[in-house]
Amino acid sequence: MLIRDVTPDDWPLIWPFLHRICAEGETFSYPTDMAEEQGRAYWLLDAPGRTVVAVEGGAVLGTAKMNPNQMGNAAHVSSASFMVDPAHSGQGVGRALCAEALRWAGEQGYRGMQFNAVVASNTPAVRLYTSLGFRVIGTVPEGFRHPRLGYVGLHIMYREL
Amino acid sequence: MLIRDVTPDDWPLIWPFLHRICAEGETFSYPTDMAEEQGRAYWLLDAPGRTVVAVEGGAVLGTAKMNPNQMGNAAHVSSASFMVDPAHSGQGVGRALCAEALRWAGEQGYRGMQFNAVVASNTPAVRLYTSLGFRVIGTVPEGFRHPRLGYVGLHIMYREL
Repeated sequence: MLIRDVTPDDWPLIWPFLHRICAEGETFSYPTDMAEEQGRAYWLLDAPGRTVVAVEGGAVLGTAKMNPNQMGNAAHVSSASFMVDPAHSGQGVGRALCAEALRWAGEQGYRGMQFNAVVASNTPAVRLYTSLGFRVIGTVPEGFRHPRLGYVGLHIMYREL
Repeated sequence: MLIRDVTPDDWPLIWPFLHRICAEGETFSYPTDMAEEQGRAYWLLDAPGRTVVAVEGGAVLGTAKMNPNQMGNAAHVSSASFMVDPAHSGQGVGRALCAEALRWAGEQGYRGMQFNAVVASNTPAVRLYTSLGFRVIGTVPEGFRHPRLGYVGLHIMYREL
């Protein structure tokens, strides 16, 4: 598996699973009926942000975007989001993408990384982030309406860099 | 004091104090060197967001914007931001704007209101929000670089509606 900066040619390989993950509506606070152009605008970031893909043998296994979480005098904290093709889950793709985001953020001089909206019922994500040094610093009660589970908490997670 | 929806004619009366508050860099995570057009784009919201002004005798005393805090299955939590002209601080303008944001969010069917970045050293704001039913649900440690105080916490505050 190679992680590298995204190119325009990668988008047609990202959109099918990004679209599916958004449409399922269980893990992301993106519109469940998101249009492709909207998805592209949200996901493919220009500097100071960055978008990468995890690729193997011509397939895109997953993707990550990373960016300052706020502007101005709060721009020293980064954020990141990760999408792994469900066909390639359980293979360490999310972990590799998160590790790369942390490496990049440290290199860029950020002092921390914050996730603003980790769905509390997304146990694999919470476990992964925790194992990489993140902690839940707060939870919006009933901040997410899960299509099967109903209202669940929405965690804010953070770690220093 | 009247609180009403913003009109394009209000902007020239908003920008001077919005610009000053951003340039001081003590309370907002906007660029401290924000250009006017960028400020206008950030502050004047189209539906489903809303921007209002507090006016009295032809003067704009303060302004608020309100909006969904996230999209998709997290869009039932609102957010809001408030700027009061320092020349009119201590006159209840911020309280009136926040009360109007809460009224509007309830009317729109939101289930809660979340502030993502309340500078911990901004005691008047923390006190005001607390008095209106908000609580700190988490704090990003050293999430804000105050120009005089150095790194201070950045609170996430929330209340149900």
